[in-house]
Amino acid sequence: MTSEHSAVTVLGLGPMGRALAGAFLDAGLRTTMWNRTPGKDKELVERGAVSAGSPEEAVGASSLTVVCVVNYDAVDAVVRRGPVTDALKGRTVVNLTADTPVRARDTATWAAEHGFGYLDGAIMTPTTTIGTPAGVFLHSGPEELYREHRTALNALGGTHTHLGEDIGRAAAYDIALLDLFWTAMAGYAHALAVARAEGVTAQELAPFAAGIGTILPPLFEQSAEDVDSGRHSGEDNPITSAVSSMAHVIHTSEAHGIDTGVMRAAEGLARRAIARGHSTDGFLSITEILNPR
Amino acid sequence: MTSEHSAVTVLGLGPMGRALAGAFLDAGLRTTMWNRTPGKDKELVERGAVSAGSPEEAVGASSLTVVCVVNYDAVDAVVRRGPVTDALKGRTVVNLTADTPVRARDTATWAAEHGFGYLDGAIMTPTTTIGTPAGVFLHSGPEELYREHRTALNALGGTHTHLGEDIGRAAAYDIALLDLFWTAMAGYAHALAVARAEGVTAQELAPFAAGIGTILPPLFEQSAEDVDSGRHSGEDNPITSAVSSMAHVIHTSEAHGIDTGVMRAAEGLARRAIARGHSTDGFLSITEILNPR
Repeated sequence: MTSEHSAVTVLGLGPMGRALAGAFLDAGLRTTMWNRTPGKDKELVERGAVSAGSPEEAVGASSLTVVCVVNYDAVDAVVRRGPVTDALKGRTVVNLTADTPVRARDTATWAAEHGFGYLDGAIMTPTTTIGTPAGVFLHSGPEELYREHRTALNALGGTHTHLGEDIGRAAAYDIALLDLFWTAMAGYAHALAVARAEGVTAQELAPFAAGIGTILPPLFEQSAEDVDSGRHSGEDNPITSAVSSMAHVIHTSEAHGIDTGVMRAAEGLARRAIARGHSTDGFLSITEILNPR
Repeated sequence: MTSEHSAVTVLGLGPMGRALAGAFLDAGLRTTMWNRTPGKDKELVERGAVSAGSPEEAVGASSLTVVCVVNYDAVDAVVRRGPVTDALKGRTVVNLTADTPVRARDTATWAAEHGFGYLDGAIMTPTTTIGTPAGVFLHSGPEELYREHRTALNALGGTHTHLGEDIGRAAAYDIALLDLFWTAMAGYAHALAVARAEGVTAQELAPFAAGIGTILPPLFEQSAEDVDSGRHSGEDNPITSAVSSMAHVIHTSEAHGIDTGVMRAAEGLARRAIARGHSTDGFLSITEILNPR
């Protein structure tokens, strides 16, 4: 089994799966791979990876299988079949596919029933960060299992954080962080559309948009304790002033015929928070409207 | 007039107005101030500022008047009155009140009709940054006028950028950047609500949220040229994959009874972009849906 322990299997050869397999190869691990549609493995084979003829053959080649496909429906289509389940017995799956916490918990239950180890994970950074110090990986599930495979996972580079034994935790963080990321990107896209309507190019706005981006991380960290304790001090910046800014954005956008669905939804939450008595609180008091304690 | 040129008047003594007046005082400028409701000037008077009995008396005391009130309705209520207009003749107003580009242009026209100089500006950073290197100020309007008052404005600390002669430009940048900021904050609030429903505290999520915040500035800058040219490469991260992530966020949120209006609006834009042929493009192709060229 020694050779198996310095071996890893990758299921799924999309851009992220290929990056993962490449990083394992670079780290000198014997890498076996399989993809539902053929033709994605050519470069990796040239670099020394083994292309398996079936998923059961692939998972049988290594003690650790890393799965990275489009979602858990795709995971199930590959893995939840008798021959694969049989081949997985006594081995470990680290599922880096993005999906919901519910699906992660369901998959862990199924894995336990079929006698193989299961860790769930999330990759928070783009494919280009894989194998570099910039990668950010979140993991959850049995800590012992995580420790056992940590060396192989470290081959992917970057920072690995074990969030706890609750298998749904990595997906929960992933969902929350994707929520933040894509909402912020929607805000940037909207800002660019409004700027263009006002004769301001993306390249003119971008340095200042980057400046706004720089303000966010400390704000996120400073406000967290207050949010946890239900305090939402609006001393320097009350939610009423946020609503006033949002109204300016909506007014200007609509004067240019630009859809304001995103901002109107956010403003609606703020107005509801004010109506529920948060008028002197800060904007993050909308968390109490979104998810009352 | 020499004394007037090292003197400045501040109209509006909300938290930001008080910070501005304090910075002028610290820089040794003779500072006169006025506020609609009394009682906000006590500490500034103790520090040497002069409290005027009326707005006309206030603007008559300095060659430069800086206005910072809640919005342009409040500006008009103070300034668009005969005695104040008369007192402003031959002087200059820098309006740092936040509002829309349309209102800025309208105010500039009115100022020209009444024979006084007018610059419009926006403060992009919190009150605590005023008088420090961290402040960010945007200005627009006649460049000569801007140069003339630049020394006084520099007393506010931070970075001052003159965006051009179009008087609406500072407000346009301001609106676009507020759009980005408040949308991102709505995303953070939502992420915190989803995290809480999953048993993850704000303090647990915050360091990773800050990590997402750190990804944004380079992304904003890198994508700007493509957005300006109408290219929206989705090579590494197509909009279809964004929609898949957004669907996970919506699904998980709704399973916890959490409102998804903001994300649904953003996802709707992405789906419309896909329907219009952007399926292999990146997410920022939604700018073409928001504001078709």
